[in-house]
Amino acid sequence: MSLLTDFGARDPSAAICRGVVLGIAPDALVVDISHEVEKYRISHGALLLWCALPYLPLGAHVAVVDPGVGTDRRAVALETARGDFLVGPDNGLLLPAAERVGGVTRGHLIENARYRLPFVSSSFHGRDVFAPAAAHLATGVPLESLGRALDPADLVRLDWGRVTVREGELETSVIYVDTFGNLKLTALASDLVAALGNLPFGEELALAVAGGSVARRTLYVTWQETFGRVKRGEALLYEDSYGRLCLAVNQVSAADTLGLREGLELRITRRKRYEGAGQSPGRLQDW
Amino acid sequence: MSLLTDFGARDPSAAICRGVVLGIAPDALVVDISHEVEKYRISHGALLLWCALPYLPLGAHVAVVDPGVGTDRRAVALETARGDFLVGPDNGLLLPAAERVGGVTRGHLIENARYRLPFVSSSFHGRDVFAPAAAHLATGVPLESLGRALDPADLVRLDWGRVTVREGELETSVIYVDTFGNLKLTALASDLVAALGNLPFGEELALAVAGGSVARRTLYVTWQETFGRVKRGEALLYEDSYGRLCLAVNQVSAADTLGLREGLELRITRRKRYEGAGQSPGRLQDW
Amino acid sequence: MSLLTDFGARDPSAAICRGVVLGIAPDALVVDISHEVEKYRISHGALLLWCALPYLPLGAHVAVVDPGVGTDRRAVALETARGDFLVGPDNGLLLPAAERVGGVTRGHLIENARYRLPFVSSSFHGRDVFAPAAAHLATGVPLESLGRALDPADLVRLDWGRVTVREGELETSVIYVDTFGNLKLTALASDLVAALGNLPFGEELALAVAGGSVARRTLYVTWQETFGRVKRGEALLYEDSYGRLCLAVNQVSAADTLGLREGLELRITRRKRYEGAGQSPGRLQDW
Repeated sequence: MSLLTDFGARDPSAAICRGVVLGIAPDALVVDISHEVEKYRISHGALLLWCALPYLPLGAHVAVVDPGVGTDRRAVALETARGDFLVGPDNGLLLPAAERVGGVTRGHLIENARYRLPFVSSSFHGRDVFAPAAAHLATGVPLESLGRALDPADLVRLDWGRVTVREGELETSVIYVDTFGNLKLTALASDLVAALGNLPFGEELALAVAGGSVARRTLYVTWQETFGRVKRGEALLYEDSYGRLCLAVNQVSAADTLGLREGLELRITRRKRYEGAGQSPGRLQDW
Repeated sequence: MSLLTDFGARDPSAAICRGVVLGIAPDALVVDISHEVEKYRISHGALLLWCALPYLPLGAHVAVVDPGVGTDRRAVALETARGDFLVGPDNGLLLPAAERVGGVTRGHLIENARYRLPFVSSSFHGRDVFAPAAAHLATGVPLESLGRALDPADLVRLDWGRVTVREGELETSVIYVDTFGNLKLTALASDLVAALGNLPFGEELALAVAGGSVARRTLYVTWQETFGRVKRGEALLYEDSYGRLCLAVNQVSAADTLGLREGLELRITRRKRYEGAGQSPGRLQDW
Repeated sequence: MSLLTDFGARDPSAAICRGVVLGIAPDALVVDISHEVEKYRISHGALLLWCALPYLPLGAHVAVVDPGVGTDRRAVALETARGDFLVGPDNGLLLPAAERVGGVTRGHLIENARYRLPFVSSSFHGRDVFAPAAAHLATGVPLESLGRALDPADLVRLDWGRVTVREGELETSVIYVDTFGNLKLTALASDLVAALGNLPFGEELALAVAGGSVARRTLYVTWQETFGRVKRGEALLYEDSYGRLCLAVNQVSAADTLGLREGLELRITRRKRYEGAGQSPGRLQDW
């Protein structure tokens, strides 16, 4: 079983959800994926769950990033092809992870008062609705007991941003800056290969950056296997451990060093001969 | 069993307490309520424990926010009417939570060397005194084995700040700003009803703010069921999921947006007709 | 079993390691020592593990602060004299803790594909190599099954900084600033006694500070048993609960208040009569 929220480590809310779970399912093994998701950022929560789910034991997983708590957004429990139950608000948070483990096989609303806490507040459904539902699922309560069936095709979908694969060119954008300052992109490494063909490690790439109020500019980085293949302070593009494209700077924050942030758009091509002449690849002073 | 401290997530101290517990009571199920309590802020720790305790499984609960560690402040273990054991320094940290689950039925000093670690440092009683005592209680050691009985009436009490209920007027203050930037007040929702009578959702309220170096001013907010009932960026007063009055702004930090902080005093009345004329309720530009 | 990393509480990486462990060793009791180690700071991770290990149940312990991930730095599993297994990169992170519980009795490389995840990424060996190895050790896989034996004498050693004990003088430096702002020194309390002889609590000391771009200056503090022995805001030197010298200010951050930071060098002597005349001991305005 797992918990993922934007409740914050300082406040007691995440622990309260765990306490509620243990009150219903004392033998549940509960893993905290993160409670430090940026407040209200459904897309971040969805990405973290997408990363984590394949590595977690099969079970019930509660995710709560829920700006619409107490309104008419639906509370749902989804079964995945792998056999997990994903429990949370129907706001897009759960679907990417579900699809990563085979997709949603069926889903039900969480409506049955029997599987909620006796008093349901208007502002803390993690405690009153989602944690109890997941705990009951963990003890063997059938999914269909929670409430009416829903059509998985009706579930709210997130827009993680467009990925455009063209001959010799990949368009993508930054979806998450991790705690190391690495920039996770919407595109997977397989998208880059589809656009540019197979790339030997060390290949030089040009990344044209645009978006928001940022001046357009081009970064020159190398395609690398891992951080330690370039010098400290040098930038690299690599396939992260989930198959996703990621822009990093060895041992320092790429976001800070490169002045990049979530939402910026990148057009990635092979670096042309003479392009940015006089600039060494992957050096910060390149641009 | 649970742990609540101001030890910080970066340092190893909280994990060490958990390790000590598991060394004594290997089957203990330990929930971390929070280790990010603001340093030395006993009142914050007391509030978080007050919030969490009713939702945690019955058991031994260790709380350590302990600026007086190593001095003559007393180390205590309290039994609650619900059947919990609350373990920590006698500085006010434990009492509000105890009273929330029926009050203290009896208490003992933690004195018996048998239920401490062999070496007791002067600066880390969480590890050397409190965690071991709680773990021993969890394994069935009787409370009275820990040391002399104490008189619950002698326990140190916190001052959480005055709540004054008058006809048509409630005086309260801000006791905690949570990680969302919501402002928790000393008053409960029942105090507001006692002062103003029953309030329909949407009712407009005037909050006169004073305290510290802050200029006196009046906020106009609406009484709401939950965040999503107002537009993003609009302020609301609501009953939080613990029955407490809470001032929030939908999807942004109320503390930052409204320029409020812990300790400020609020006088809450119904908004008079024509009061703050030309200002829409709950809009930031109101004041 | 325990986990210590610089992965950050916001990202899912630490939880993923825990998930991987539980997939292999479902009964493992896993303690998170910290996942907030400052990024890439091997010396910090080593210190936290040194602090924590003696208080953790015997078992397999994973530590990952690994700027060289994916390069040719070795992945190792070490057995300690106490009977623990320490698992992580061979970059100095594990040795101080091992020596604190009796030293390394034998060590093996982690090479055997059978005890890794099926796919090993180039950037997340915590998940793919270290957590699985530790989990397999926890289930009883013999250490020697992981890979070739290594010579403990060849393990990479950290330099935690020189401690010089002279007659009447101790030279040491700041190795870590904890979340309270206390300054942990390279020297142990026993080093101070070796240099200055036995010190009664209250004894006045002179700390000459140098290093980096900091102006040389002298702090006058008292040797104390614990924080609460001096007034709020007064500085003290004390033996921390691990036997280490530590410089603190009662109830506020010593690092901020004294303007000190990691890496600064301190020369500690008894305060001479008339030295810093007119300055009260331990007051901030002393210096």
